[in-house]
Amino acid sequence: MQQFFEIEKVSEGKARAGHLYTDHGRIETPIFMPVGTVASVKTVHQHELKDDIKAQIILGNTYHLYLRPGMEVMQNAGGLHKFMNWDLPILTDSGGYQVFSLAKTRKMSEEGVKFKSHIDGSFHMFSPEKSMEIQRQIGADIFMAFDECTPYPCDYRLAKKSMNLTHRWLKRCITWCNENEELYGYKQHLFPIVQGSCYSDLRKISAEVIAESNCVGNAIGGLSVGEPEDEMYRITDEVTDFLPKDKPRYLMGVGTPWNILETIGLGIDMLDCVMPTRNARNGMLFTWNGVMNMKNEKWKQDFSPLDEFGTSYVDAEYSKAYVRHLFISREYLGKQIASIHNLAFYLDLVKVAREHILKGDFYEWKKSIVPILKQRL
Amino acid sequence: MQQFFEIEKVSEGKARAGHLYTDHGRIETPIFMPVGTVASVKTVHQHELKDDIKAQIILGNTYHLYLRPGMEVMQNAGGLHKFMNWDLPILTDSGGYQVFSLAKTRKMSEEGVKFKSHIDGSFHMFSPEKSMEIQRQIGADIFMAFDECTPYPCDYRLAKKSMNLTHRWLKRCITWCNENEELYGYKQHLFPIVQGSCYSDLRKISAEVIAESNCVGNAIGGLSVGEPEDEMYRITDEVTDFLPKDKPRYLMGVGTPWNILETIGLGIDMLDCVMPTRNARNGMLFTWNGVMNMKNEKWKQDFSPLDEFGTSYVDAEYSKAYVRHLFISREYLGKQIASIHNLAFYLDLVKVAREHILKGDFYEWKKSIVPILKQRL
Ligand SMILES: [Zn+2]
Ligand SMILES: [Zn+2]
Repeated sequence: MQQFFEIEKVSEGKARAGHLYTDHGRIETPIFMPVGTVASVKTVHQHELKDDIKAQIILGNTYHLYLRPGMEVMQNAGGLHKFMNWDLPILTDSGGYQVFSLAKTRKMSEEGVKFKSHIDGSFHMFSPEKSMEIQRQIGADIFMAFDECTPYPCDYRLAKKSMNLTHRWLKRCITWCNENEELYGYKQHLFPIVQGSCYSDLRKISAEVIAESNCVGNAIGGLSVGEPEDEMYRITDEVTDFLPKDKPRYLMGVGTPWNILETIGLGIDMLDCVMPTRNARNGMLFTWNGVMNMKNEKWKQDFSPLDEFGTSYVDAEYSKAYVRHLFISREYLGKQIASIHNLAFYLDLVKVAREHILKGDFYEWKKSIVPILKQRL
Repeated sequence: MQQFFEIEKVSEGKARAGHLYTDHGRIETPIFMPVGTVASVKTVHQHELKDDIKAQIILGNTYHLYLRPGMEVMQNAGGLHKFMNWDLPILTDSGGYQVFSLAKTRKMSEEGVKFKSHIDGSFHMFSPEKSMEIQRQIGADIFMAFDECTPYPCDYRLAKKSMNLTHRWLKRCITWCNENEELYGYKQHLFPIVQGSCYSDLRKISAEVIAESNCVGNAIGGLSVGEPEDEMYRITDEVTDFLPKDKPRYLMGVGTPWNILETIGLGIDMLDCVMPTRNARNGMLFTWNGVMNMKNEKWKQDFSPLDEFGTSYVDAEYSKAYVRHLFISREYLGKQIASIHNLAFYLDLVKVAREHILKGDFYEWKKSIVPILKQRL
C-alpha cells in the first residue's frame, strides 16, 4: 500500500519538506489550502485554482455544505469533487468550529451539539457520528474528527473539560469510521485535532492522546482565535514536539504570510485560512514586497503591473491603477483579480519555503524575508 | 485608405453580413457588443472576453468613466484600451443617456446639460464639445454624438423639440471633431444618432438629417426605453429604410435574443445591451433551448452540463445543479459563470445569424428559432 506521508527532507530545525499521497493526487508539503466554503473558493473558477493559482488541495466546510446544498444533493452528485468539478484532493473540517461561531443558538451535551441554522432557523444536531457521516457523504480525501474549539481567552477548568470531551468524541469518530465504509471508492483519511487552549500542560496531554490514536495525520486546533502571535507560535512549537515526526501536521486556520513561514519553521506541514480570499475582497494584497491596500490614493496613477514578482497572469495583465479603480468603483472584477493574486502568492510562498527547506537555508531565508512581507507598501 | 465598412452579403430581406475595420482590428457584423460600463464587463476577465466569449468589440460608458477613474487618469494611462488592457475595438456612448437616467439633478439648456454626480454630488457640465473631448480622452474606436434621449411615452411637441436640439448638437460635435486631432495615434469614428421617439414623421426627418451628416456609421437611439416590442420593430424598420445602405447601423441598448434577431432582420449591424450581464447576475440564462432561471428548484438535482449547446467552457465544466447551488448560496462564482455563459451565447447568436445570412436562409431560420429562444425552461 502507498504510504500516506513521506518526508523528503528535514531541515536543521523542525521544518520539513514532504509529500502527501491521496487517491486524487500527490501534494507537496508544506502546503497552503485555499478555503472553498460552500463548494466554491469565492470569486475563483475551478480552472483558475488549478492553472493560475496552482492549488494542490482545497478545503470544504462541513457546516455550510450540510446546510447548502445539503447531503441529498451531495450524494446524488457523487460527492463534492464531482459536484463542484474539482478532481484534486479536498479536505473537510468537522463542522464543529462553525457550529460554535455561526449557528444562532446551540445546546451542548455529551452526545453532541444541537443548533439552529443561521440560514433558515431550522434545528439540527451534530454529533461525532453525524459529522463523520456527513464528511463521508461529502467525500473529502482528508476529513477531520469532531471537536469542540475553545474561545480565547478560556478559563483553565473549561479548557480542560472541553479538551476531554474532544478526546471522548475522537474515540466515537474512530469507532464510526471502523464500522462504516467509504462511499465513492476512494480512501478518506481521518485527522484528529489537538486542543487545550493556551495551556502547555493541556496541550501536552492532548497531543499525546491524539498521537496514541494513531491516525495517518494530526491537526492542531483552537489557535488563531484571537491569542497573541507569540502564544500561537509557543503552543505550535510545544505541540509539534509531542506529535509523531513521521506524520503530517496540520495547523488549522493560520494565517498571515509570516504566520505561515514561522509555523512551517515549527514543523507544520499543512495550513488553511480565509485570509487571502477575505482580505482580497477588501482590497488587501499580499506580495513578496509587502502588503498593499489597493484602495489607497497612492496607486491612482501607478500604471505599472499589479505585482512584478507575482506568478499569476493577473499580476502582469492588470495595472495597480486599474485594480485600484475597480475597488473604488466597487466592481466585482477587483475582488476576482485580488483573490487570484493572493491565493497564487500564498501557493508561491509555500513553494519557495519548500525549496529553501530542500536547499537547507530555510531559517536564514525566513529571517530575511519576514520583515519584508510585513511591510506596508 | 481602408474602407470602414464592407458588406459581404445582403439577404433576400434587409439583413446584411459585413465587416467593420478599425485600427484595433476587424469586426464581423452583425455584432453584439458587451457593455463594460466602468472599464470592466462586470464579473468577467478581459482574457475571458477574448478567449471564452469571443467578443470582438466592447462598450464603455462615458458618463461613468468621466466620473471614475476620471480623465486625468484616463489620459495618463494612454486611453481606455491601455487602462483596462483590452486591445480589440471599443465603442463609447456620449454620456447623454446616463446623465438623463442616473445623475441626481440636471439642468438642460441649448449649451448642454449641467448635472450633479450620482456618486459624490459634485456639479458637472456635458455639452456636445465636452462629450467629444471626453470621448477623445477615452480613445474609443467608435464614439457617439451627444444627443438627448426622450423617455417613453413622449409628447409629440417635446419629441420634436428634443430631436431638433439633438440635430443642432450633432453639428457642434462634427465641428469639434474637425478642429481637434486624435490623441493616441489611431482613428476614432463618430456615429450620429437618430432620435424622434415613436413618431414616424420625426424618425424620417431625423434619419435624413443624420444621413446627410455623412458620417461613416449611424445609430438609432431612443428605443428600448419602455415602448412595446412591436413599436421598437416598426420604428427600426422605418429608420433603416432612410439610413444609407452602405454604412453600418447601430441599434442602441437592444435587447433580448429575439429582439436581436428581429432587428438584424430589419437591417441592423451592431447592438449592445446590459441584459446578458445584468440578467446573468440575477440567475437568468439565455440558451438555444430557451430561458433558464437558475434559482429554480427544478435544477436542484440536475447534474447535466449547464448548457449542452453552449460554446464556452463554463457550459461543459459546471452542472445546472452546481450553478443553482451557487445562486441559492449567493456565491460570486454563480454570477461569474452566468455572465460568461450569457455573453458567449449572445456572441454565438450573432455569429450563427451571420452564417444564415451568408447561406441565404436567415429569415426561415429566424422564424423557426425565435419561439424556441423565448421558451421558459
Ligand atoms: Zn517533490
Ligand atoms: Zn468574414
